[in-house]
Amino acid sequence: MTRTAVADLGSNSFRLVVFSAENGWWKRTDEIFESVRIGAGLAQTGELAPDRMQRGWSVAEVFDHFCRATRVDEVIAVATSAIRDAANGGAFAERAALPVRILSRDEEARYGYLAAVNSTTLSDGAVLDLGGGSVQLVAVEDRHARELGSWPLGAVRMTERFLADGEPASGKQLRAVRRHVAEALADAPWVPESGRRLVGIGGTVRNLAAAAAAASEQPSMGVQGFHLTSDALGALVDQLAALPAVERGKVSGIKPARGDLILAGAVVVQAIVEHGGFDGVEVTEAGLREGIFFERHLAFRDPPLFEDVRRASVENLAAQYHVDDAHTRHVARLTLSMFDELAALGIHPGDPAERELLWAAAMLHDIGMAIDYDDHHKHSRYLILNGALPGFSPREMVIVAEIARYHRKGMPSFSSDVARAVREGDDKLLDRGATLLRLAEGLERSRDQIVRTAEVTQDDGQVTLTLRADDPVSVARWAAERERDLFRRAFGRELEIR
Amino acid sequence: MTRTAVADLGSNSFRLVVFSAENGWWKRTDEIFESVRIGAGLAQTGELAPDRMQRGWSVAEVFDHFCRATRVDEVIAVATSAIRDAANGGAFAERAALPVRILSRDEEARYGYLAAVNSTTLSDGAVLDLGGGSVQLVAVEDRHARELGSWPLGAVRMTERFLADGEPASGKQLRAVRRHVAEALADAPWVPESGRRLVGIGGTVRNLAAAAAAASEQPSMGVQGFHLTSDALGALVDQLAALPAVERGKVSGIKPARGDLILAGAVVVQAIVEHGGFDGVEVTEAGLREGIFFERHLAFRDPPLFEDVRRASVENLAAQYHVDDAHTRHVARLTLSMFDELAALGIHPGDPAERELLWAAAMLHDIGMAIDYDDHHKHSRYLILNGALPGFSPREMVIVAEIARYHRKGMPSFSSDVARAVREGDDKLLDRGATLLRLAEGLERSRDQIVRTAEVTQDDGQVTLTLRADDPVSVARWAAERERDLFRRAFGRELEIR
Repeated sequence: MTRTAVADLGSNSFRLVVFSAENGWWKRTDEIFESVRIGAGLAQTGELAPDRMQRGWSVAEVFDHFCRATRVDEVIAVATSAIRDAANGGAFAERAALPVRILSRDEEARYGYLAAVNSTTLSDGAVLDLGGGSVQLVAVEDRHARELGSWPLGAVRMTERFLADGEPASGKQLRAVRRHVAEALADAPWVPESGRRLVGIGGTVRNLAAAAAAASEQPSMGVQGFHLTSDALGALVDQLAALPAVERGKVSGIKPARGDLILAGAVVVQAIVEHGGFDGVEVTEAGLREGIFFERHLAFRDPPLFEDVRRASVENLAAQYHVDDAHTRHVARLTLSMFDELAALGIHPGDPAERELLWAAAMLHDIGMAIDYDDHHKHSRYLILNGALPGFSPREMVIVAEIARYHRKGMPSFSSDVARAVREGDDKLLDRGATLLRLAEGLERSRDQIVRTAEVTQDDGQVTLTLRADDPVSVARWAAERERDLFRRAFGRELEIR
Repeated sequence: MTRTAVADLGSNSFRLVVFSAENGWWKRTDEIFESVRIGAGLAQTGELAPDRMQRGWSVAEVFDHFCRATRVDEVIAVATSAIRDAANGGAFAERAALPVRILSRDEEARYGYLAAVNSTTLSDGAVLDLGGGSVQLVAVEDRHARELGSWPLGAVRMTERFLADGEPASGKQLRAVRRHVAEALADAPWVPESGRRLVGIGGTVRNLAAAAAAASEQPSMGVQGFHLTSDALGALVDQLAALPAVERGKVSGIKPARGDLILAGAVVVQAIVEHGGFDGVEVTEAGLREGIFFERHLAFRDPPLFEDVRRASVENLAAQYHVDDAHTRHVARLTLSMFDELAALGIHPGDPAERELLWAAAMLHDIGMAIDYDDHHKHSRYLILNGALPGFSPREMVIVAEIARYHRKGMPSFSSDVARAVREGDDKLLDRGATLLRLAEGLERSRDQIVRTAEVTQDDGQVTLTLRADDPVSVARWAAERERDLFRRAFGRELEIR
């Protein structure tokens, strides 16, 4: 296992994140967060204040102790805006216990781009990184970064300039922010030309997504892949503007500590969406630190991007929990071959998107065994919903989780805590997926791939599954026969096993 | 890792369970269950029926395939009552794909005893194993098995003899069952002399506990450690007796397939509790298969028993999820030393039972990192509630889980889904535990055991925590200082860190 620590010395907080990677999986395994406010007073003096530097050095020392104590293999420490902009930033970095690299604006924007394109399906569009001091935008074409820009439009700065009084904000104030943003972006004609997809990173965007999710009673499962529409964003801006600043941190989804900055951040995002002609913002939880990790982890690729983010997410989650690989892949193969053959016979639509979700559920159906054998189907659901699958939307994650949930028993249905994330027709998709996965699991009862193939034929409205194997398979057959009722419900046909 | 498969060829079902053990942990990692009903028709003919034997051999073959495919290290196959009692049982066993050992009644009872004493705190009392055909009782003295007995009082047999009509049962019918049980047990005067604690194993007892838990709205977290009182058992018998047999499987907690046998089973348990003068039944989810595993796993001990079941449970769960051992143990040490010193100063009661729960929570506080770093405190709670801690009651597991849940942030409280399991005063215990654990976690922020000790002194109602360390510990101090409000709430004192 390789453990890489990324220390991010930001303007408000210092954060150390450890990424572990081994045999085909990677994940964030540890983190220390300390509020430092290294940038406090910087705007007035142009320098880091002595007491802030003392605190910063103490925290850097803790990070150093931590890395030594937990024996990480590599430590990469980077500093961003406050330390970059301060006249004594270099002096601060030199005396820190960790070797600190001060990132240029372009480098910072590039790491944001790597994070976004490695955690979403963005191919053409733009990446928005909204921080306290500045906003970075990156135009993406065929997954490559084509243009980078940085503007002093961060949430702190905009709050201080336009919304400093803490009162409810007037329409006039909001228009002034939006006009300011549009004027600033006028020097970058590539922004409105970058397509309609915009991926957003950073705490402001995450909080806005969480608030929009809460307002529409979406399941509380993180905001990875959440699509914040222009309408929802507009409604949030109206809601937040009507409140005094001290009340904004009480809105569900907004962190209290961010209450005083959230409105300015929301209006900036709104202005960028309008100006760029984007379809709202797709949210990712990855950011600068993930970007730095991906550069190492995918160093053998140029640019360092996963070939297929969704596939990589599923393979990553499966590998983390050490599932029986031969069994899992054979179940996936049997499931998909039945899916394809039933589609070829016209028995169901055979939608490729549905097929991919079914593949993901098959790959992940047994991961819950890592928690406990009993109820492992429920634990698989929990792990899928809580582990996040970058590249998938919350709706898709819920479908994958529920198909895995029903791979052994029970009547498939979306449970009430996640039902709001799916749409009409998804219950049929869940029925089909759970039925096929359960059939395949039954055929793989002995875990030795004894049933090599299961061929589907149709005769007079009855579907026949013909099993091919070298040894007798009576038990696989009994197991599959138990699912006949479920099959009838999902496909409206009788099932015969041969 | 050593993987041991135990195949249990029972009268109704064949079940293969795989236990994995490695570096200080063990757990059940896999299972195949097939309904075989090998005993069907045995009562009439005294022999296993040919079609049942065919099915049994097919399932044994699947087990064999499974063990080869998943490369288990050892396979132990045992047969119980039906195969033992059938005239052709030996012939069946000989032709099975697995080498089957037919257990005597005494051997079977002994494995039940090993399961019970290794999964509860039973030291003096008795173990009850209620099956379909027979009942085994084992008297336990100082954790040793002193007497074994077996009687033909199983749930199937009693149903056929006393409650075969499937109608609601009269008081007269129930009295007849109880009298029959008492008469049968009259040959074992040691039963009423074995103390007041009775541990029950087997599906009937588990279902009765689940029904009692549901009736009193206890959290649905398995029945390990659940105490089924005589009153609750009496209420269940009354409820079940008033229903026709077909309705009994619909009572919450009772599995539908067990509906026709559950009343007879409940009355037999009730009669044994009455006859033996026991304080109800404590339930364990372990059984024959675990007993067989424990005999291997603990072969270096005679009898093969954990030295301390509760400690073993906590160490086992902690080891399964690969927590940072040095950090975890240091957090536990700091937590308990503060607990002890505060108790010595008379600031809280210093209850040893509370201390043990706090130790368990400290040992398990980080296991949720195995799921995801984000929200790992919530994942630790989930793993504790779902992984089960044999030897602890549901109330104790809930307390441990909630202390771990609050080891980083949030205002400690029992969430509504588990609140029914705890009792008055437990909220104070949670407050104290979460506060001390969070303080210790703050002191161990750098994970390098830099704060060696934290000494507690009191002066004029203010508590001072004096940290001893070789290096500067300003960050540990800041982290601990954040918990001052929580400390005031839990201990009614101001906290000073030095």
